[in-house]
Amino acid sequence: LGFSAGGVHCGLAKQPDKKDLALIVSEVPCAAAAIYTRNKVKASPLAVTKAHLADGTARAVICNSGNANACSADGEAVARGMCRAAAQALGISPRDVAVGSTGVIGQPLPLEKVAAAAPALKAALEDGWGGSDAAARAIMTTDLSKKELAISFVLGGKTCRLGGIAKGSGMIHPNMGTMLAFLTTDAAVSAPMLQKALRDVTEDTFNMVSVDGDTSTNDMCVVLANGLAGNPIVDAEGPALEDFTGALRAVCTHLAREMARDGEGATKLLTCTVEGAPDTRTARVLSKSVICSNLFKAAMFGADANWGRVLCALGYADADFDISRTGVCFASAAGSVEVCKDGAGVPFSEEQAKRVLGEKEIDIRVSLCQGGGSATAWGCDLTYDYVKINGDYRS
Amino acid sequence: LGFSAGGVHCGLAKQPDKKDLALIVSEVPCAAAAIYTRNKVKASPLAVTKAHLADGTARAVICNSGNANACSADGEAVARGMCRAAAQALGISPRDVAVGSTGVIGQPLPLEKVAAAAPALKAALEDGWGGSDAAARAIMTTDLSKKELAISFVLGGKTCRLGGIAKGSGMIHPNMGTMLAFLTTDAAVSAPMLQKALRDVTEDTFNMVSVDGDTSTNDMCVVLANGLAGNPIVDAEGPALEDFTGALRAVCTHLAREMARDGEGATKLLTCTVEGAPDTRTARVLSKSVICSNLFKAAMFGADANWGRVLCALGYADADFDISRTGVCFASAAGSVEVCKDGAGVPFSEEQAKRVLGEKEIDIRVSLCQGGGSATAWGCDLTYDYVKINGDYRS
Repeated sequence: LGFSAGGVHCGLAKQPDKKDLALIVSEVPCAAAAIYTRNKVKASPLAVTKAHLADGTARAVICNSGNANACSADGEAVARGMCRAAAQALGISPRDVAVGSTGVIGQPLPLEKVAAAAPALKAALEDGWGGSDAAARAIMTTDLSKKELAISFVLGGKTCRLGGIAKGSGMIHPNMGTMLAFLTTDAAVSAPMLQKALRDVTEDTFNMVSVDGDTSTNDMCVVLANGLAGNPIVDAEGPALEDFTGALRAVCTHLAREMARDGEGATKLLTCTVEGAPDTRTARVLSKSVICSNLFKAAMFGADANWGRVLCALGYADADFDISRTGVCFASAAGSVEVCKDGAGVPFSEEQAKRVLGEKEIDIRVSLCQGGGSATAWGCDLTYDYVKINGDYRS
Repeated sequence: LGFSAGGVHCGLAKQPDKKDLALIVSEVPCAAAAIYTRNKVKASPLAVTKAHLADGTARAVICNSGNANACSADGEAVARGMCRAAAQALGISPRDVAVGSTGVIGQPLPLEKVAAAAPALKAALEDGWGGSDAAARAIMTTDLSKKELAISFVLGGKTCRLGGIAKGSGMIHPNMGTMLAFLTTDAAVSAPMLQKALRDVTEDTFNMVSVDGDTSTNDMCVVLANGLAGNPIVDAEGPALEDFTGALRAVCTHLAREMARDGEGATKLLTCTVEGAPDTRTARVLSKSVICSNLFKAAMFGADANWGRVLCALGYADADFDISRTGVCFASAAGSVEVCKDGAGVPFSEEQAKRVLGEKEIDIRVSLCQGGGSATAWGCDLTYDYVKINGDYRS
């Protein structure tokens, strides 16, 4: 309730007509929280957004694709200029605007294109699905699919809604922040609780995706809560915060999976679940190590049940566990096949393995049998097309 | 002096006639030192070699390709059996034999093939280049080129010789040890000094190579020193150890570069040098981060001067430095092109950049201007062929 969004073509994307400028606006002030990349090279919009969100409130997000506004001499002035353009069109303060960018690093972003498009962008704002769809398309770069989801849930007897859009296809290996994800909710949640929920959820969702092991300079995830649902404000830990966090987790999990599925050049979504780990951290580190292995990703592209590469990736991860109790199973819609038990190979049908690995969604299940820690990580296969896309990204 | 080597086909490699079993022998007992993979999943030959080298002496190395002897139930018994087979043929103790393996993980290694080939292997031993050539070929898997080098140097007035062979093409991201490298010298060096020299040298050589970020279960580097050169034994730190370490570094640097050049699917050798870092560790971490970035490696395949990916990889590395003073330059036999200064892009000729990056050997020079630390890392581009080779490695 109370949010609208839109997207237009302002000329930053190389393709004519591709929407490349998105705007999300709330009718009323929102509690705001955000998480940023851990990359020491941070794109200029991140510093500006951080300053604007320091008071825990915001009303709008403006974001372009086609240019990362990173490593460019006047980047901060340009990012501030984007906020100003949005604020003028909307009649609000620039300090209530968050700004994001995605695209090529190191090229100056022509601010005049954004400023010229601001009135059209305001005119394009729509409530509901239409606006969200346009905004989600406007932040896509090499993405082939749009990532968005909206759900409803109940807080304090009131129905609340929470929706999110995201982009992410290459340079995806978030650590702390993530590619770009913008979430809005009409639930009433205080800024500190919003930040806590977002931090908890990103650990299990965006931080558990890897497409290529490269952490972007522009990763950012922003959530705005405008309170129009009328629920009693969530301003302390407790069951209401848990319910809200659960809703946020559902949306972020979906967006994270969709990013992995749409990894640059990907033909397969890989989901690695590690169970029976000594603790959660171990499970996270191990599942992510499997998902990040180029050798394993290439084997999945070839539907090759090369489980030795799973064990190898577990072995070089920074975690303590007993390899001699480890089991590995591959599963998909075509069934499952156990390939390793107690750290050693077991006989299996290569034919059945080919069938299982021929599907578009592959589960890699690792059982450690040494505790109650578990975690899931998402990734994709490494393909000819990943190389093709990234061999000539700028032109 | 006093070393012979050879290689034969024993039937472990899939290709008929490919040499797949190598032997290196010294006429007299040698001081021995070794470094092993840091992967927690260690192939069985590593445990057996570690036990056999515990007394600091050895006389022979046996090594097969075509099967990694890792994650297999009776792996240690097989590795001990390989030492026994070599020892019987040579008339020495099995405890004086080191053993290595490389190939597919998780498949039982048929020891009888090694045992049956042992007499032929002994008969194939040759001094000098012929034997070294055969042994170097016998340890190759997906390698396209043989890696070997021999040099001579002077210690205590005596001419000493030092030679090495290595293999390594995929699953190359050594941490501590390396793929397989076997080094022999007729210099007299005590086992503790040999170990110290090897540890120092691997930090700057094998540990600075990455092909794909995957650390193998089988990485191992063994050096044997038989003392036949007649130099006063190097048994303490000092100028003689430094001279020996310098010779070892020269051979290991060559082998490390050749591994990177022959990375699976590679078309280009990438050398990243970081200078002006606050300290050596920072320079090492940063140069390796650039060399390991899939995105940057794919850009180099496409001869795309996407320097933003260099800055991005520097930024997510685990090191402290000031990005705003960082410069980047690409260089090759076709000239050089400065692309980034003080952390931001500088105008450059795309035509000249294409020419520079069209060569087979590319230097990436990163200047931090904030100290005296420097380091060099070697890698290769990410290509269609890497994906092809690893999409179907087992069959």
